[in-house]
Amino acid sequence: MDKICVAVDLGGTTVKMGLFSSKGEVIEKWEIVTRKEECGKYILPDIAESIMNELKSRNIKVEDVLGIGIGVPGQVIEEKTVLECVNLGWGRVKVAEELQKLTGIKLVKVANDANVAALGEMWKGGGEGFNSIVMVTLGTGVGGGVIVNGEILTGSNGAAGEIGHITINLNEPDTCNCGKKGCLEQYASATGIVKEAKRALLATNQASSLRDLQELSAKDIFDDAKKGDELALLMVDQLAKNLGLTLAHVSHTIDPQAFVIGGGVSRAGDILTKNIEMYYNAYSMNALKNKAFKLATLGNDAGIFGSAKLIGADYFDERI
Amino acid sequence: MDKICVAVDLGGTTVKMGLFSSKGEVIEKWEIVTRKEECGKYILPDIAESIMNELKSRNIKVEDVLGIGIGVPGQVIEEKTVLECVNLGWGRVKVAEELQKLTGIKLVKVANDANVAALGEMWKGGGEGFNSIVMVTLGTGVGGGVIVNGEILTGSNGAAGEIGHITINLNEPDTCNCGKKGCLEQYASATGIVKEAKRALLATNQASSLRDLQELSAKDIFDDAKKGDELALLMVDQLAKNLGLTLAHVSHTIDPQAFVIGGGVSRAGDILTKNIEMYYNAYSMNALKNKAFKLATLGNDAGIFGSAKLIGADYFDERI
Repeated sequence: MDKICVAVDLGGTTVKMGLFSSKGEVIEKWEIVTRKEECGKYILPDIAESIMNELKSRNIKVEDVLGIGIGVPGQVIEEKTVLECVNLGWGRVKVAEELQKLTGIKLVKVANDANVAALGEMWKGGGEGFNSIVMVTLGTGVGGGVIVNGEILTGSNGAAGEIGHITINLNEPDTCNCGKKGCLEQYASATGIVKEAKRALLATNQASSLRDLQELSAKDIFDDAKKGDELALLMVDQLAKNLGLTLAHVSHTIDPQAFVIGGGVSRAGDILTKNIEMYYNAYSMNALKNKAFKLATLGNDAGIFGSAKLIGADYFDERI
Repeated sequence: MDKICVAVDLGGTTVKMGLFSSKGEVIEKWEIVTRKEECGKYILPDIAESIMNELKSRNIKVEDVLGIGIGVPGQVIEEKTVLECVNLGWGRVKVAEELQKLTGIKLVKVANDANVAALGEMWKGGGEGFNSIVMVTLGTGVGGGVIVNGEILTGSNGAAGEIGHITINLNEPDTCNCGKKGCLEQYASATGIVKEAKRALLATNQASSLRDLQELSAKDIFDDAKKGDELALLMVDQLAKNLGLTLAHVSHTIDPQAFVIGGGVSRAGDILTKNIEMYYNAYSMNALKNKAFKLATLGNDAGIFGSAKLIGADYFDERI
């Protein structure tokens, strides 16, 4: 019998899970709540129980499972151990070892959630057709994942791809969640975009349709920019400049084939990628110009696709 | 008989060559002039002839050679072909194929010279004991090489590690050799360091021992800084800030274990690495702080050591 891959995307609110066929196709997707009580001690047992129930209901035996791939919101070393997940109440947790014990499934590979999402987008999303990509996720924060020659670049402490914390403004007075000042995340996250717009509205008397809104969102700014509001356009331009500059830094380090932009903010669409690309090219030497700039396409499923690919990489390739 | 590795470091003025034993030790080093006439058509035949003469004089047969590793000053793809070497008058040259034909030695691996130097420093130089390093060479220009898990990270167009062309000043009026403005190289190369000091001397009336010198060199600035000259100290501080910031960008992308600083400017020593490290930590999130900062130790031999390692990596490991 062809083997099944189990994919897990462990988030701070829900755990998304999926079964993938030997051809890399989704058989089933489901999710459970992430129980963070008591330092997150129930999380892995809950996941194991949910997987075993799902396998049982489909008459799939443990020996028919190739393995479990799991993405976690923290720095991971050796595809096994997470150093810390503040969001889950976890310190150092041996995720692979514990899931092996709880399920009897021997092969478990663990990776950082942003890295796993990047792998998923490379495999079946916006980065399809490429094998070296950088994914940037513009959501509540700014996440990043680096894929080189089809594999996650983890880094020596599991902190590669932390693009959101590249310093782009040496004069920022406010402090980022990471403790530094002037990180990309402070300008390019959904909250950062709104904060910058509010700063701009306060700093000038310039007329803007943004002034009419009671609660400003990142979507409002893109919507008004598309309608031609000058201040909103300026905000989009500044955002694109910050992202284009940062991605140029990244490119001069690893020279990927493509950039994939995901997260809620990326729903703005082409207005975002086209402007990022323009600034990227301005800040890149000739050999590094003209990369592909793609929007992510898998949305919240990027994680389980990436986790499936993490565990099944060579296996899928042989069967497709 | 244990096999011999041939190492070549092809530069714009000279070609450095070496024979390495199966244990990775230098048997012999020598160099020839780089003949750049007629679009560099003599370069590879000259190298091949010199290698064959050296092998003959030592009674080493072609079948006793494991292979040739060669570093070239241009972007290399697939460890075979260089896309362009402006310094040599070369366009696209199939270096591996040509050297194979000219010598009869079947295994030839080609890499960018800065990458090869980084590999050499990781193997037997300042980066010894690490397997993921970034090397920055501060010379006439600013070069860079990235090693991840013991191997060169080449990039999709052979342009990974082009750290010298990361944009660090959006307001620079002058143009870099690469055509952009505000590249690290414009401030951190030997010429850039002098140019910045001249700018500072012009911009203020501040007393400085640098004003007494007829021709200013990067070495003068470090020497005067060590003697306590305030303007020279300020220049060293600015240089360290620029380098620390840029290396933090690099680290948030690939999270290496160590940075190795080489090139003529690195002869300044600890005053350079200690100050770079201070700024690096200021611009890095916690998970990325406290990397090792080392000075390169192989000098002009880094290239041949790296070329030897390029061809003999696994071979040496089995025999040491």
